[in-house]
Amino acid sequence: MKTALLATAVFMAPFAVLADPLPSWTESDTKTRIIEFVNAVTDPDSPDYVTPADRISVFDNDGTLWAEQPVYFQLTFAMDRLAELANADPSILSNPTLEAAAEGDLQAIVDGGHDALIEVVNASHAGVSVEQFQDSVANWLDTARHPDTGLPYDQMTYQPMVELLRYLRDEGFRTYIVSGGGLHFMRVFAEEAYGIPPEQILGTYTDTIYETGDGAPAIIKAPGIAFIDDKEGKPINIERTIGRRPILAGGNSDGDFAMLEWTTAGSGPRLGILVHHTDAQREWAYDRESPIGKLVDGLDKGPELGWVIVDMAQDWDRIYTGGD
Amino acid sequence: MKTALLATAVFMAPFAVLADPLPSWTESDTKTRIIEFVNAVTDPDSPDYVTPADRISVFDNDGTLWAEQPVYFQLTFAMDRLAELANADPSILSNPTLEAAAEGDLQAIVDGGHDALIEVVNASHAGVSVEQFQDSVANWLDTARHPDTGLPYDQMTYQPMVELLRYLRDEGFRTYIVSGGGLHFMRVFAEEAYGIPPEQILGTYTDTIYETGDGAPAIIKAPGIAFIDDKEGKPINIERTIGRRPILAGGNSDGDFAMLEWTTAGSGPRLGILVHHTDAQREWAYDRESPIGKLVDGLDKGPELGWVIVDMAQDWDRIYTGGD
Repeated sequence: MKTALLATAVFMAPFAVLADPLPSWTESDTKTRIIEFVNAVTDPDSPDYVTPADRISVFDNDGTLWAEQPVYFQLTFAMDRLAELANADPSILSNPTLEAAAEGDLQAIVDGGHDALIEVVNASHAGVSVEQFQDSVANWLDTARHPDTGLPYDQMTYQPMVELLRYLRDEGFRTYIVSGGGLHFMRVFAEEAYGIPPEQILGTYTDTIYETGDGAPAIIKAPGIAFIDDKEGKPINIERTIGRRPILAGGNSDGDFAMLEWTTAGSGPRLGILVHHTDAQREWAYDRESPIGKLVDGLDKGPELGWVIVDMAQDWDRIYTGGD
Repeated sequence: MKTALLATAVFMAPFAVLADPLPSWTESDTKTRIIEFVNAVTDPDSPDYVTPADRISVFDNDGTLWAEQPVYFQLTFAMDRLAELANADPSILSNPTLEAAAEGDLQAIVDGGHDALIEVVNASHAGVSVEQFQDSVANWLDTARHPDTGLPYDQMTYQPMVELLRYLRDEGFRTYIVSGGGLHFMRVFAEEAYGIPPEQILGTYTDTIYETGDGAPAIIKAPGIAFIDDKEGKPINIERTIGRRPILAGGNSDGDFAMLEWTTAGSGPRLGILVHHTDAQREWAYDRESPIGKLVDGLDKGPELGWVIVDMAQDWDRIYTGGD
């Protein structure tokens, strides 16, 4: 019996060491660079060793951890929600922009620019408690399906990135989301989809109001955007909320440039990762000319800054967590 | 040898169980209620059991974790810092308020109200990188001494509260600071003084600017207060930053009322703790009439809301972590 146990132990130990932490990544230079970085900062004998408390990693969400085409999923939610609210009370569609949104006329919203977007977000996100808002998001995720893939939106997460997040946590990192997407929106699915708890999610947020009117106190979502977690807002929000400079940052668009720049400009070992959407067959191919996920500076300056550029078509064996 | 080891193990185990987690607290109803609450939420067989992820505790800082008399320590820092900056460049004292502050004329600042305070904070806190600002705080903590006790300010932490924080962490809680004090100021000493890391500190903050001018990118403190983490701002900031409602909240003034109210209004077991400054001999005695740490609503409504009111003179064997 003792011999059998010993034999099992001898067998298991090397097996655990050799198990591939990133099985959905092809055997490429990209994968090698990521694993070598993690090995360097976690090996106590390495000159690049980093204590667990400082192993902070930050990731954009839209286009980095899940898809963002043909339009940010949160905007689809906002339009669906508006249509649902208008069913109960048509008077909330108080102008042509909101009418167009409730009819699913995406082009009208795009043509209306920033003002139209804010109007749609205000009408669909504000005036309810955070809990009520998050219930509506959860219901939408349960029922809505992506027009092209037919998948629930929260199954259009990228399996290779889900593996990377898990691998980093297994190696003593903390994994944060730092996204231009809505803070309250992301918290609904990020724990189940990515293993990232609410306190490790940073995002764009509306003002909120503490109300004690009648009954129990509640926190109500107010109209208007209080903070936009994009571009320079990302390092600012990280410094404010986390208070440490990350050693690893992942993104996919120029909205992530400042976050990767600030992360990789720090002293000691650093890694910047840019997901480049190159796969028109399995996902979408877009970068310099795209209105969503526009990537110019990252492609022009990222390589000389030492950032890893992930070529989705080449580097990923699988795209979505859901589906076949 | 084996027998000796076994004897040690048998001796150590019950000793560990019986060790007093709060040795600086007197054997009082206050201490009993705190320990009974912790036991209830951590015992898997208890109907009040709470999973570790939801064991969130939040604490005010000034007057709750360290002293706040005769004036908030951060204001003393601001005035000292202003005097130091004026030594190098007298022109920064561009008006009578700043001149008075640099001379240590506290009364002039108090008389000048909110505007004077903002002016002093702007002139002493802004225009430098976060790192530079925090270096200046660290230098000040190394050299400045409290006028009454002669102690370094970061040794005027309350030993019973330091024990409570450690006890809660030992029992699987996370401990957060949620203070009207400055976020960047507190982060300098909170990890060493309380065992609370930067990402678990919420406070008032200035705007910051991401700068990439010449050299490495930096985050610069700008003038003006971007968020005041006091009163209703406390639950709002907790919801925004942590995303979970705490099950335990500690404070000492009406600036903490909303935080304790929101915490204890949640379903399931909850504990609110108010530190009542009753000890004129060893510390200070103040509440309803005090301009600093004013406590009226908490005394009037706290007991019926089930909050524990800590009587410093009665409940604490020791006050400061530093000193004799």
